[in-house]
Amino acid sequence: METVGLETLSHLTLVLGGARSGKSRFAEGLVTERPAPWVYIATAEAWDEEMRERIAVHRDRRDGGWTTVDAPLALPDAIREAPGDAPVLVDCLTLWLSNLMLGDHDLAAATQHLDEALARRKAMTVVVSNEVGLGIVPDNALARSFRDEQGRLNQHIAANAASVIFMVAGLPMTIKDET
Amino acid sequence: METVGLETLSHLTLVLGGARSGKSRFAEGLVTERPAPWVYIATAEAWDEEMRERIAVHRDRRDGGWTTVDAPLALPDAIREAPGDAPVLVDCLTLWLSNLMLGDHDLAAATQHLDEALARRKAMTVVVSNEVGLGIVPDNALARSFRDEQGRLNQHIAANAASVIFMVAGLPMTIKDET
Amino acid sequence: METVGLETLSHLTLVLGGARSGKSRFAEGLVTERPAPWVYIATAEAWDEEMRERIAVHRDRRDGGWTTVDAPLALPDAIREAPGDAPVLVDCLTLWLSNLMLGDHDLAAATQHLDEALARRKAMTVVVSNEVGLGIVPDNALARSFRDEQGRLNQHIAANAASVIFMVAGLPMTIKDET
Repeated sequence: METVGLETLSHLTLVLGGARSGKSRFAEGLVTERPAPWVYIATAEAWDEEMRERIAVHRDRRDGGWTTVDAPLALPDAIREAPGDAPVLVDCLTLWLSNLMLGDHDLAAATQHLDEALARRKAMTVVVSNEVGLGIVPDNALARSFRDEQGRLNQHIAANAASVIFMVAGLPMTIKDET
Repeated sequence: METVGLETLSHLTLVLGGARSGKSRFAEGLVTERPAPWVYIATAEAWDEEMRERIAVHRDRRDGGWTTVDAPLALPDAIREAPGDAPVLVDCLTLWLSNLMLGDHDLAAATQHLDEALARRKAMTVVVSNEVGLGIVPDNALARSFRDEQGRLNQHIAANAASVIFMVAGLPMTIKDET
Repeated sequence: METVGLETLSHLTLVLGGARSGKSRFAEGLVTERPAPWVYIATAEAWDEEMRERIAVHRDRRDGGWTTVDAPLALPDAIREAPGDAPVLVDCLTLWLSNLMLGDHDLAAATQHLDEALARRKAMTVVVSNEVGLGIVPDNALARSFRDEQGRLNQHIAANAASVIFMVAGLPMTIKDET
């Protein structure tokens, strides 16, 4: 997985940040500046009560202009099936990657499908992802592997996005702007 | 705990950063640009030798213009009791939050008291806090919960501060400046 | 170890970032803008298969203009022995520090030797290092200690470098520029 391949996609924005950095809220704000309807593609799977609560909180915050699509694995298909003129929010790449790795799916093929789906769109597409590589090396090999794959995927999407935002404490830092 | 509520406080600065990023040193420099006396509100509790040493190192670095107040839990009271015209340094929100959570205190109430104490001040108030959300999701639930609460608190204070600085390797990045 | 001592070194650049943030690739790009030959000082030790693979991937990416020197501990000597007019890339301080700590070496003395070696050079010298302090406090004392020492070393090198770059998702943020 190289950080080249696609042309820079002028409709694509990556919102990157840590846990509780305000990524989703900021990304929703970008999308809802455009006229409704908006498509929210959720990659979360409600494995447990903690996750169910997080999903409910996010869902309650969104108003009626949103259509929500659940796509824990079939993210590329969900992007292709969204109306071509509707702004799309993908929340988030981190849970999608986690679902792929836990299910032992082919990451290179999944990333290729994601690239193709993103490249076909014309309307605003905002992708949320976590930065996870700024702590101490994790003890266990799966966490190290996840951290590596997340970093590679973030680099890849960042290379193809026209706009990249890094969130710190709810504040956006623009780290790429080719719009 | 929403990121709204207070007006932006023109006297409030948040200095955010990772471990050993130079947060305290930079925050001290901001305060000591103003005339003494200065108030240092310390939230650290010396639970063990490691912590005692860290506190001593920080204390030794500060000169005679400082009055030190220990407030591991009663941070809002300490802020209210500081002389109204003296610059105040709060070091740091992360240990305060940790003390609150370990003692099973009401975080919403404590944050409300903090907001009120900060809003009453007029003179420079510099608050130091840790960014802790940029690593891999922690294994244990308490650490995950702490990470979430710290992120929410940082967003909340950042929304209310006129100035927010993100420290990396001892270097300040200004991520909000409404002074 | 204070963040003072050396004059700012106009030939010194620090490239800082998380895991898989594109540090090495960006640093290589800085060096190869200058005419070959270039010197690559590698501090990695191939303890296991995972590490051997990472080293091989990095090595394969570099072309014939590079001379590679392995210096898991003797980094200051390797810097002194590099041709004075050849650009040098040190990749990376994090593994060097880790090797020093695992071998129970004197960090203050090692840092002093590093300072002296860096100060003697005139040609471009790019040093790669990891930011590791932006996650939750690690459980074990060695990891906490490593995190502290890495933060101190990064501050120290950043104070002496004319240029400091913070990488996020393959994108460079300039956080110091005194070139």
